[in-house]
Amino acid sequence: MSPLNFTHILAQTVDELSESESYKGLFHQHTDGNPLPSGKALQQIVELTRAIVFPGYFGISNVNSRTLKYHIGVYVEQLFDQLTEQILAGLCFAGDGQEDGCCTEQLRQQAAEKAAGFIATLPEMRRILATDVEAAYNGDPAAHSFGEVISCYPAIRAISNYRMAHQLLCLGVPLIPRIITEMAHSETGIDIHPGAQIGHHFTIDHGTGVVIGETCIIGNNVKLYQGVTLGAKSFPLDADGKPIKGIPRHPILEDDVIVYSNATILGRITVGRGATVGGNIWVTEDVPAGARIVQTKAKK
Amino acid sequence: MSPLNFTHILAQTVDELSESESYKGLFHQHTDGNPLPSGKALQQIVELTRAIVFPGYFGISNVNSRTLKYHIGVYVEQLFDQLTEQILAGLCFAGDGQEDGCCTEQLRQQAAEKAAGFIATLPEMRRILATDVEAAYNGDPAAHSFGEVISCYPAIRAISNYRMAHQLLCLGVPLIPRIITEMAHSETGIDIHPGAQIGHHFTIDHGTGVVIGETCIIGNNVKLYQGVTLGAKSFPLDADGKPIKGIPRHPILEDDVIVYSNATILGRITVGRGATVGGNIWVTEDVPAGARIVQTKAKK
Amino acid sequence: MSPLNFTHILAQTVDELSESESYKGLFHQHTDGNPLPSGKALQQIVELTRAIVFPGYFGISNVNSRTLKYHIGVYVEQLFDQLTEQILAGLCFAGDGQEDGCCTEQLRQQAAEKAAGFIATLPEMRRILATDVEAAYNGDPAAHSFGEVISCYPAIRAISNYRMAHQLLCLGVPLIPRIITEMAHSETGIDIHPGAQIGHHFTIDHGTGVVIGETCIIGNNVKLYQGVTLGAKSFPLDADGKPIKGIPRHPILEDDVIVYSNATILGRITVGRGATVGGNIWVTEDVPAGARIVQTKAKK
Amino acid sequence: MSPLNFTHILAQTVDELSESESYKGLFHQHTDGNPLPSGKALQQIVELTRAIVFPGYFGISNVNSRTLKYHIGVYVEQLFDQLTEQILAGLCFAGDGQEDGCCTEQLRQQAAEKAAGFIATLPEMRRILATDVEAAYNGDPAAHSFGEVISCYPAIRAISNYRMAHQLLCLGVPLIPRIITEMAHSETGIDIHPGAQIGHHFTIDHGTGVVIGETCIIGNNVKLYQGVTLGAKSFPLDADGKPIKGIPRHPILEDDVIVYSNATILGRITVGRGATVGGNIWVTEDVPAGARIVQTKAKK
Amino acid sequence: MSPLNFTHILAQTVDELSESESYKGLFHQHTDGNPLPSGKALQQIVELTRAIVFPGYFGISNVNSRTLKYHIGVYVEQLFDQLTEQILAGLCFAGDGQEDGCCTEQLRQQAAEKAAGFIATLPEMRRILATDVEAAYNGDPAAHSFGEVISCYPAIRAISNYRMAHQLLCLGVPLIPRIITEMAHSETGIDIHPGAQIGHHFTIDHGTGVVIGETCIIGNNVKLYQGVTLGAKSFPLDADGKPIKGIPRHPILEDDVIVYSNATILGRITVGRGATVGGNIWVTEDVPAGARIVQTKAKK
Amino acid sequence: MSPLNFTHILAQTVDELSESESYKGLFHQHTDGNPLPSGKALQQIVELTRAIVFPGYFGISNVNSRTLKYHIGVYVEQLFDQLTEQILAGLCFAGDGQEDGCCTEQLRQQAAEKAAGFIATLPEMRRILATDVEAAYNGDPAAHSFGEVISCYPAIRAISNYRMAHQLLCLGVPLIPRIITEMAHSETGIDIHPGAQIGHHFTIDHGTGVVIGETCIIGNNVKLYQGVTLGAKSFPLDADGKPIKGIPRHPILEDDVIVYSNATILGRITVGRGATVGGNIWVTEDVPAGARIVQTKAKK
Repeated sequence: MSPLNFTHILAQTVDELSESESYKGLFHQHTDGNPLPSGKALQQIVELTRAIVFPGYFGISNVNSRTLKYHIGVYVEQLFDQLTEQILAGLCFAGDGQEDGCCTEQLRQQAAEKAAGFIATLPEMRRILATDVEAAYNGDPAAHSFGEVISCYPAIRAISNYRMAHQLLCLGVPLIPRIITEMAHSETGIDIHPGAQIGHHFTIDHGTGVVIGETCIIGNNVKLYQGVTLGAKSFPLDADGKPIKGIPRHPILEDDVIVYSNATILGRITVGRGATVGGNIWVTEDVPAGARIVQTKAKK
Repeated sequence: MSPLNFTHILAQTVDELSESESYKGLFHQHTDGNPLPSGKALQQIVELTRAIVFPGYFGISNVNSRTLKYHIGVYVEQLFDQLTEQILAGLCFAGDGQEDGCCTEQLRQQAAEKAAGFIATLPEMRRILATDVEAAYNGDPAAHSFGEVISCYPAIRAISNYRMAHQLLCLGVPLIPRIITEMAHSETGIDIHPGAQIGHHFTIDHGTGVVIGETCIIGNNVKLYQGVTLGAKSFPLDADGKPIKGIPRHPILEDDVIVYSNATILGRITVGRGATVGGNIWVTEDVPAGARIVQTKAKK
Repeated sequence: MSPLNFTHILAQTVDELSESESYKGLFHQHTDGNPLPSGKALQQIVELTRAIVFPGYFGISNVNSRTLKYHIGVYVEQLFDQLTEQILAGLCFAGDGQEDGCCTEQLRQQAAEKAAGFIATLPEMRRILATDVEAAYNGDPAAHSFGEVISCYPAIRAISNYRMAHQLLCLGVPLIPRIITEMAHSETGIDIHPGAQIGHHFTIDHGTGVVIGETCIIGNNVKLYQGVTLGAKSFPLDADGKPIKGIPRHPILEDDVIVYSNATILGRITVGRGATVGGNIWVTEDVPAGARIVQTKAKK
Repeated sequence: MSPLNFTHILAQTVDELSESESYKGLFHQHTDGNPLPSGKALQQIVELTRAIVFPGYFGISNVNSRTLKYHIGVYVEQLFDQLTEQILAGLCFAGDGQEDGCCTEQLRQQAAEKAAGFIATLPEMRRILATDVEAAYNGDPAAHSFGEVISCYPAIRAISNYRMAHQLLCLGVPLIPRIITEMAHSETGIDIHPGAQIGHHFTIDHGTGVVIGETCIIGNNVKLYQGVTLGAKSFPLDADGKPIKGIPRHPILEDDVIVYSNATILGRITVGRGATVGGNIWVTEDVPAGARIVQTKAKK
Repeated sequence: MSPLNFTHILAQTVDELSESESYKGLFHQHTDGNPLPSGKALQQIVELTRAIVFPGYFGISNVNSRTLKYHIGVYVEQLFDQLTEQILAGLCFAGDGQEDGCCTEQLRQQAAEKAAGFIATLPEMRRILATDVEAAYNGDPAAHSFGEVISCYPAIRAISNYRMAHQLLCLGVPLIPRIITEMAHSETGIDIHPGAQIGHHFTIDHGTGVVIGETCIIGNNVKLYQGVTLGAKSFPLDADGKPIKGIPRHPILEDDVIVYSNATILGRITVGRGATVGGNIWVTEDVPAGARIVQTKAKK
Repeated sequence: MSPLNFTHILAQTVDELSESESYKGLFHQHTDGNPLPSGKALQQIVELTRAIVFPGYFGISNVNSRTLKYHIGVYVEQLFDQLTEQILAGLCFAGDGQEDGCCTEQLRQQAAEKAAGFIATLPEMRRILATDVEAAYNGDPAAHSFGEVISCYPAIRAISNYRMAHQLLCLGVPLIPRIITEMAHSETGIDIHPGAQIGHHFTIDHGTGVVIGETCIIGNNVKLYQGVTLGAKSFPLDADGKPIKGIPRHPILEDDVIVYSNATILGRITVGRGATVGGNIWVTEDVPAGARIVQTKAKK
């Protein structure tokens, strides 16, 4: 093939790929002046939040009690600015159809209110995350200290991202919550939908392959192992064959439930308080409180 | 231990590690003038391709329809240059034994032809990926828009990488396809071998732990959940006890099949059109069209 | 909400988050002059080790046999310096309570001894990793060359990190070993505790979701597939309800065992030499040597 | 000194430095939502402009005539966006006193108009810079090609920055023009005020130490050597002893003037067409057209 | 030349360059455990200091009066840590001959005291730099605001670095002061030795080529133009022909002196209060108070 | 102005700037497969050379005599590879007109020979630079140690770059030498043409504004101060009015000459052995050996 031919192929491909028909639905048109959601900025937002909640473990590490307030002051300030910008970007992204741009003062004001709302919940978020750390420590004989749990355990990373994302979802922020949980999904293999509701002292051991669906309700003191699915069994379609949004379709786990590795629990069923679900099983019906179910014995 | 002893230990270890006997088979000898495969460059190639296929979602985000052609022109140009260089590096890597270097004009010409060949298929690749996006959107009540699916869903990332890698494999490019699918494997936990053949409207929900082997054949409208394995049951060895390459040994899934989480389907069996495979089961025999198989009920 | 209100909310949140009561157990207080463990430095340490063990595949790639010794000399030197610094940081981190700082000459000397001790085992580590590469190659018909296995296979990445971490644990280094195995966990979905003992010719196929617990003992020529758990069934608590540390609680796999995907093996049981454990099953009792156990057949 | 004392010293210094009295006039108060001038962004703006004017020499270098338009399209687009943002930042910075923020639609519209105005002059700017390149090449026997002049000569760098900055100044952009000429000053030691007016075929040999003041007027075909000052002799003060702004106070150099190294020409005097000013002299009176003035001979 | 020859040449050159005779006096031997001066760290130290002195102009720019104290607190903390480390490195570098390493507690304590001493002078340094800014503003009709002077004027950059470096020199810190003034020299072409003594309201116009020697004494309200040298005329040698250190050999400029561009003032002479030195002249004798000296008129 | 108008302006400007007439002589057309000169790579080449010549002062600083050879081995290897690539790029750049690409084996072989030739002169270059360091130390009472001179003095930086560039020029490498001296010009304000010939024990004090022309010949033990010009007085033009290349037109300075600040010496004149040229003067005629010339006394 001669260089001339390369030229021809490339130029023709550019033409094809630039035809508007060919990118219908796959192209995010940008309106001038609108901020854009940025994965990198969201990464920083997560890291700032982590640095505020677990000072010294994340963020600038040589902080001590004398300088702690200076550092938290700066982190909170940066978090407010960056989060406002990203929430605004999320609002713009969601409202694609609006013709007239969205760098309106009104929308920016809304974004700032949501960002401040998020920050105001950080003290409470720290209180709950402290219970998650405690649960992970108490649940693992291999753990040597809270410090090790906070710095190394993927469950803490995934649950932190979930708790941030869930809070943002409650504040009505679009898109951003899902991006934040997907970051943790990619890093830890733990996929918690931001819409799930999860109590305190929650822990996940190892965690790779865990899936927690959008409408799950999980009580306090629940422990999951790797590979556990809390999923939907099926979902109703509308007249056009599209799934109907927002219908409860994932399990409810009451307080003190344990689910072992690779168990799959599907549909709007309830696993009662204190029940234990053995590994590698497929559960689609209610499990009574205190019950213990396991796989049929393997054959040799 | 005195500093003198450290010196001695380090120097001796360097000597041992530099003996040619000790690195036999573990050392990639470089021939001057040969380009080298670069993980970073391949990452950019994947990002460029994504930016071409889904403009505005990936790459420079403030693109609009007026400037789209400029941007695609630049991306395609960069892709051609970088891909040519990496394909050449892959060809050199594979032909290790050749004594006389490989920055030959002939090999470079081959690399450029393969790169141009890849680019020429991008419009078709976009058309198929559009069906995958549609399938993911229709299959998940939690999805709010195509935009959310394209920007956040790990399945789209993994399937995109697979479709690029498969195309490169078909063009006879060594090593590079596997590196590209392993990138997605690391990010998403979804491991699709570039040799697999997969139809349109393909989707994977959540995805962590999915394995799709080299000789799988998957029809259209197939949906997999997390933890599904489409693997080999066993493989014949040659006279030296080495596995024989290239023998079909993975399942065939016909159109409209659904496989639930953590199911394992092994060997060159066929799951017939429209069949449903329940979760957490182990399947090593053909499944008839339209069948629905599930795990034996757990005992309490 | 007026800007004044934002100011008020942020300032009040900073105050709450700076109260010492609120960060009890979640704050890593830094003592001036102490080095700090650094994820980035540990990443470099892993990459340096990989570059020493597999020259030309990792690290500076255009190395040839003439210059190999220069490169290994420099890598070993850098590894010694960086590892000494990080081990010292690990020792400081673990000994939090000590009032008087820890940049003592004595502790630094200890750290240097451990770093030199680690380096001295690299030739042996290379010999064992060579057997792991061989096992992966022989066990996968899709593998084209040792080179492909070394550069792309997640199992090699995870097993390399494990072997480094295990060596550091044996040398009495705190915290760092776990961080190193968690890096591989995040990249590959394979979670091997640094405390496990694993023989030569070990391989893991695909690997996402594999969990190998702290007190596992694995013989030679063992092969695991994705999603396999070698876990604890339960663990005794002390009088305060805290788990007792260090009790053997994970399985023993003798030589030549194969475990298929998503199998869960729990407790201090023994899987005898040459046994095969089928996929998606739950095993909590000893498996005799040479046995083959599989899941109860699915129902249709 | 004990650690306690350090704590005391640092805390007290922070207090002193945070008293509003102490930073009066030295503190740039930020208003939320206002963009901020960014040295890094301005550096990119200069590089984009250079890449547009001298394609292939600056910016992405592997451009060819086939892809030139794609690249210029992308550069112009990026330039428009970034320049709009920085001009807006400059307008905000200049209008410090305004209470009510300045991310007004009106100001952003102004900024966009100025950015578009700047871009519209780029073709003319390229035409003039081509004459400067030609003059540098013709004036230096050591120059081998236009390419060498464009890529290496500090004069071209300094004159390019000046021509951009002058254009922005003419469009009424505050602050930014000066930052752009100071960038070149730092890199080349050539200090041209953006307010100066300079004709075509302008060149500066070597250049370090050249100063060209705000109200200079320089004709066509003028050549300066290193260390030449075109400065002010004195300037009138107002009633408060502050200098009065904007009064012509720097020299006029007519066409075809040459000024040798380290000559100092001060005040609103005129150096007539074709005059030559020798090196190391101090000129404060008009020089007639065609004259040649030199230093009094040194004594031995 | 064959590849074999290249190998030979390179290997032989490595051997020659590694002979200890060949690098005598040109090799900085590193002692394990000693910190090393770092240009990058010193750059950050200068930037931190600038951010503390001129908040909002340097450092994080979106600071406001509410958050100023948080930011200054963090900057001062970082400055203390980084400066202690670099001063320690400077002390080690200077004391090369000491056999026994220098990461002694005693030396680190000294370094911390000097760092705290430096920080304690920052409020006073800000007061003096404010007078320099005022002098630059009043002395230049082209200046529009204090803000423009602080952000763009090379003189402020050079004088800031000098005032920091001078303070460190007074505290007995070796090497570091000179590195800090050379940074400004490279960026601005203004070369002020850290040993010079300079009063308040000091300004330099344009500045490229200015040289101010080690033993200069400069009063208040002095103004220099570009290319001015305040140098040594000659210096006495010791018995070995080496220059004797520390003898006053540079000029004294009393209050209110102005020196025009490219003037050279050499030796321990005094330029009296209020004197004006014209440009391009060579001055080696005292200039009386109030005098005005200029170059002999050029000839035509 | 409406967005529509912006669109129109930008699109029209792109069109104008893409017309081939408009970029004639200002566009560097790239031929596929040709390497491109890279400022960043040349920066690394200079740094590698500096790290080889002055080990421990530049490059990785924690080198000691035990590991020196490993480090120099790696640096020399990297230097050879990078320099070969850049020399090849320089040869391609210079031979623009050639139609058929230039990644020919023959040209690459030439580039490698020149790179090896450069490396072979490094031991001699180190010997001469050692004399330059000695001269700087002996000539400056403010210098405390060789170490300070090597790490901080701009003259050493500029002379190092010159000596590298001169060697490359002697080997027939185009473009690259000039880029290397311009790097030092930008950093130090010292502009030495790579074509100049300069003896040992050469030093420049302060240095900003020094210019040394292409055909200068400078003996041993010569010292220049800041602002000194060794330039051309005039140069003959050819029939087309273009300067004739390569004619000797710059001064000859014999051994032991000193030239004080801001002196300008022009034309192919000779300054005799041991002569002293005072500051701020203009010299266009031969200066006898041992003479001392100074400026006519200033008038008051």
